Amino acid sequence: MAPLGAGLEAIFAPKSIAIIGASQDATKIGGRPVELLRRFGFPGTIYPVNPRATEVQGLPAFPTVDAIPEAPDLAIISVAAEAAPDALDACAAKGVKAAVIFSSGFAELGEAGLAMQDRLRATALRSGMRVLGPNCLGAASVAERTIATFSVVLENGLPPVGPLGIASQSGNIGSYTALLARERGIGASRFITTGNECDVDIADCIAFLAQDDATKVILCVLETCRDAPRLTGALEMARAAGKPVIVLKIGASEAGQAAAASHTGALAGSDAVFDAVFRRAGAVRVHSVEQLLDLGHAAAVLGDRLPKGRRTMLLTASGGFGVLLADAASAAGLSLPSPAEATQRRILDVVPYASPRNPVDATAQMSSRPEILEAILAALLEDDACDALLILMSASLYLPRLRNVYMPTLRAVREKHPDKVVMLAVHGPPDAVAELTAMGFPVVDGVGPSTQTLAGLCDIAAARTLPPLPATLPPAPPVDAVALRTEAGTKQVLAAAGVPVLPERVVASAAEATQAATAMGFPVVLKIVSPDLPHKTEVGGVVLGLDSAVAVAAAHDAMLERVRGAAPSARIDGVLVSPMVRGGTEMILGAKRDPVFGPVVLVGLGGVFAEVIQDVAVRPAPVDEAEAMAMLRSLKAFAVLDGARGRPKADLAAAASAIAALSRFAAQHAADIAEIDINPLLVRAAGDGAVALDALIVPAAS
Amino acid sequence: MAPLGAGLEAIFAPKSIAIIGASQDATKIGGRPVELLRRFGFPGTIYPVNPRATEVQGLPAFPTVDAIPEAPDLAIISVAAEAAPDALDACAAKGVKAAVIFSSGFAELGEAGLAMQDRLRATALRSGMRVLGPNCLGAASVAERTIATFSVVLENGLPPVGPLGIASQSGNIGSYTALLARERGIGASRFITTGNECDVDIADCIAFLAQDDATKVILCVLETCRDAPRLTGALEMARAAGKPVIVLKIGASEAGQAAAASHTGALAGSDAVFDAVFRRAGAVRVHSVEQLLDLGHAAAVLGDRLPKGRRTMLLTASGGFGVLLADAASAAGLSLPSPAEATQRRILDVVPYASPRNPVDATAQMSSRPEILEAILAALLEDDACDALLILMSASLYLPRLRNVYMPTLRAVREKHPDKVVMLAVHGPPDAVAELTAMGFPVVDGVGPSTQTLAGLCDIAAARTLPPLPATLPPAPPVDAVALRTEAGTKQVLAAAGVPVLPERVVASAAEATQAATAMGFPVVLKIVSPDLPHKTEVGGVVLGLDSAVAVAAAHDAMLERVRGAAPSARIDGVLVSPMVRGGTEMILGAKRDPVFGPVVLVGLGGVFAEVIQDVAVRPAPVDEAEAMAMLRSLKAFAVLDGARGRPKADLAAAASAIAALSRFAAQHAADIAEIDINPLLVRAAGDGAVALDALIVPAAS
Repeated sequence: MAPLGAGLEAIFAPKSIAIIGASQDATKIGGRPVELLRRFGFPGTIYPVNPRATEVQGLPAFPTVDAIPEAPDLAIISVAAEAAPDALDACAAKGVKAAVIFSSGFAELGEAGLAMQDRLRATALRSGMRVLGPNCLGAASVAERTIATFSVVLENGLPPVGPLGIASQSGNIGSYTALLARERGIGASRFITTGNECDVDIADCIAFLAQDDATKVILCVLETCRDAPRLTGALEMARAAGKPVIVLKIGASEAGQAAAASHTGALAGSDAVFDAVFRRAGAVRVHSVEQLLDLGHAAAVLGDRLPKGRRTMLLTASGGFGVLLADAASAAGLSLPSPAEATQRRILDVVPYASPRNPVDATAQMSSRPEILEAILAALLEDDACDALLILMSASLYLPRLRNVYMPTLRAVREKHPDKVVMLAVHGPPDAVAELTAMGFPVVDGVGPSTQTLAGLCDIAAARTLPPLPATLPPAPPVDAVALRTEAGTKQVLAAAGVPVLPERVVASAAEATQAATAMGFPVVLKIVSPDLPHKTEVGGVVLGLDSAVAVAAAHDAMLERVRGAAPSARIDGVLVSPMVRGGTEMILGAKRDPVFGPVVLVGLGGVFAEVIQDVAVRPAPVDEAEAMAMLRSLKAFAVLDGARGRPKADLAAAASAIAALSRFAAQHAADIAEIDINPLLVRAAGDGAVALDALIVPAAS
Repeated sequence: MAPLGAGLEAIFAPKSIAIIGASQDATKIGGRPVELLRRFGFPGTIYPVNPRATEVQGLPAFPTVDAIPEAPDLAIISVAAEAAPDALDACAAKGVKAAVIFSSGFAELGEAGLAMQDRLRATALRSGMRVLGPNCLGAASVAERTIATFSVVLENGLPPVGPLGIASQSGNIGSYTALLARERGIGASRFITTGNECDVDIADCIAFLAQDDATKVILCVLETCRDAPRLTGALEMARAAGKPVIVLKIGASEAGQAAAASHTGALAGSDAVFDAVFRRAGAVRVHSVEQLLDLGHAAAVLGDRLPKGRRTMLLTASGGFGVLLADAASAAGLSLPSPAEATQRRILDVVPYASPRNPVDATAQMSSRPEILEAILAALLEDDACDALLILMSASLYLPRLRNVYMPTLRAVREKHPDKVVMLAVHGPPDAVAELTAMGFPVVDGVGPSTQTLAGLCDIAAARTLPPLPATLPPAPPVDAVALRTEAGTKQVLAAAGVPVLPERVVASAAEATQAATAMGFPVVLKIVSPDLPHKTEVGGVVLGLDSAVAVAAAHDAMLERVRGAAPSARIDGVLVSPMVRGGTEMILGAKRDPVFGPVVLVGLGGVFAEVIQDVAVRPAPVDEAEAMAMLRSLKAFAVLDGARGRPKADLAAAASAIAALSRFAAQHAADIAEIDINPLLVRAAGDGAVALDALIVPAAS
């Protein structure tokens, strides 16, 4: 395939555009781009192609692409699906650099459509022409007035020229994002929707925008991922370019995932794995179009002036709103430190009846005079614990008296504290919002949205300090599948990979069992070893807490008799003797292959709770020890490991080391291992280590 | 105090209003009501009172209330705090029916202010005059053009006359709610803010609105509750009147609660208990002003046409939006059944490339012709599994062509299916939204808000079938505090209350222990009995799993020796012999007194997990068995009790019975017991019962 993002300039900044299937009727799909290109002032040449017309919307029309006097940079193909492959071939023959295919009726309709789509793809690969679509809404470039889309939202105008690049797999959600941007006066650079992605995929778009001077922040709407390395590569390019990527990934719920799978026909992948991929790549996830735009706009306004941490001071003129804001800020994950004593005194000096803790309720006095507001803002911004200040102004700016206090004071604050992050929660009027935005304040409407946006800015800032991606590990030789048929063999494989296991021995007689137990120390556990008995307990194949040689010998023979009675045809490879360990916290540690992103590692607290509460941390494999530690800390139940309620602190370092070892093993065996379950991984008190008590490895189907 | 809601008509529909502290300056607090009353056309008489003026804003002024030629129905008091008590006394002497006190500087400033506020309260109680405030923004009645507020949001106009009654403890949040209503053209009846609540409290306001013909839906902003029986009584009045109460209770987070406590000076109460109180009263909670208004408006539009259940069909013209909508609907707690085969066929008959499952993606074809849209809507509305239909129209109505398809079709659908709930998610234009609203459709802007609003409507519908409130239990004679000093005595008290405990015996010798153990059957547990040793394990005072008479006798003597060594001065009342039980699920069951709402019962899964995950169900005590069962089902970890992962189903009936018994006991001992902890309550497999294995009762401080 083409290098990431290569050739997309022909879509965004072509000198000439052919519209194949151009229509006289400007409301038709094939007529709309002609009309919009002219209305918005596309500076290049437009070549309508229509064999049944000599003129389209006042422009001379051509019967075929070939009849055009030059090779157009871009072709828009708006013909029936059946005619699209030939049209694309004609473009390739003519030397067109890129094509946008609006036509639907391809892979989204199943086998026959897929075959036609494969022809489009083959043409793209063979010719080097970049092909967007089919079944897409196209693209637009605001600065260059290039309108290669039939999206109806453009009928009411383009967004202003600005720094947001919008790349969406969904045509409608991408369009709606552009519409909201226009309504709010938020500036956009490019808009592109990828549809069926026969050639240009969402990774191409992200990569292009990462290199595009007109784009500072990338907004991405993602339904699926058809090529994981390309997506992660593109996200990495954006990170290297210092451009935030904000992702609205849809299909978070089971119902949504089912709908996405039926809609895109692509494997959905696990939503938790998408989360993990975004986190590692430093892309920040949002959950609505409104959040996408709020955060993108705020990030564009702030540029590199991001909060250094999550410590947020909240300022309101109303006690009730202060409480509401504190609720929302807590829910968004911001932290609300108390201002220093000196800060509180400075506030009380100017507003004696203020509530100077966080949220600061400075009462209506706050906006009574500019000097008072300025003094409060200075006190808060000069507090060491203030990473960001969030001022809730609600509808105050509708009142000229308050506006006359706020505007000059905020302008002065911006000049005096150019590096401080001050977020404003403002409900209109639009001209005041525009003026504040021009001063460099991120402005968001509403209590919830403003706190969520500020938290998102903190995520963007945190993503700048992420460690480099882990090095790719070379594949290891496949594991001997025979060893994996028993617990004992499986544990030996894991031990070799660096996962801690107990000193254990497979024995063939009561005498050997007694000898082994005596050597390792009592009490011990006996377990049957058989490739045919994965559920050992059910056949009486596990005995715990044997504390003497006599007891071990008796239990050994009794177990063999019991198991043979319960499962006469099972092959018995012997009996496993292990030390009996007590105490510690049971965790589950596993790895599996995500259908989209490949091997992932996951960890959670053991027992039925982890599965019912679904408190599990997932990351792409491999992870290093630091990332493994972050996985542990991200668990809701982390406090259980960290000494909650008087429990001993667990050996987190040992647990992290086991996670990292397993993740490396899973990454190196992506080809031959489908799934690994260590259940439980017993994590003992700090200093006492962690140990895999039972384990199962499922080889990949060959 | 006055009966709930009594006398508030003098605030909302007075024939005459005196404004004490009336100002010539219409931007001043004392000038604004004069100006607003006249601007909005108050039909009654306005009496400005100002000793330093003969005329205020063109109206004749009076030096004192007494000088007014009649007793005004309502007085607005806008003077310095120090002068307010005398002004109120003068109103009482004159025979004024109600007063609104804007002045601040009372209880919110501590002791001295509280004393002044107590004078206001005494005047109200003595005279029977209803007094709103102090430190409040006042009230307004839209239909009667009564403006007894200085809220600046009215400067730009009143909301239209309509069915929403707004009652808020927070002046600013209440005002902002009214402002958003005006901006969106949503009709309101009354607006009232209660401030310090020296007399009229939020319960009065809810109760008045419950009886008020002009109000159909009650929006309530709550910061605190100063009188729990009044609040629950008012909510009950609204429920009896069939009027939904939608509550924005602020202070949900720890930070918010701390801020609320410092702001209102009132005990905050537990947010979880507020939740429980609202749930029992059928009030529906929201978490933002925007949600409050969206849900209130939708409830007003629908009236009694509420969804019969949560089964929701989602319809979009876009696959991507369908996925996003499914995500949001799932998050909001709606259920998304698949349409019947016949329904899917009907959809495919008119749109062959539709995705006919839920979400239904009917593609752009959906709005290409009215007959197509009508056929799809009919198919979905006639599906048995459709409690509600949610149509995502995003910005379609901005396009005349689509508007011309949607409007007549939806009008026809409304007429043909008058009882069906069809929610529309529409992003403008305002006149189209107004037209759809007038047809009887609830219309909400946005994917998240529309699904949350529909879920709220389901909550409102469910609240109509709540059982009657439990009968109040008479207090029981206090428990003998001596019995509570030991586990054994505590369990006997609980057993008498109907909480199941094991057959246990306190013994005084090894011989008695052996005898008791033999009688109850092995294995047994021994525990030290001492009022001085609440933590028995730490002194070696617990021995488990004794399975013979010899072992019991030896353990008895060894335990006494160990405990005497570890705690020489502890009083020893004997040793408790109990049967050792195994298996089952450990739960925690408790009761405590909420500072605002009194005794509550709580239950959760046992162990460290419940406390770390905070998965606990709370209800006001008492609860009956059915409500106790609902508590169990509301736990995130309910699946653990319900047979998850091959576990046996727990004896839910026995657990519910224990919860109900404890809740009755807690309710009857609200005066003498502060806290009860049963940890663990062992819930065994279905049919095997539940049993309190350990218990602690903390008597109330006397």
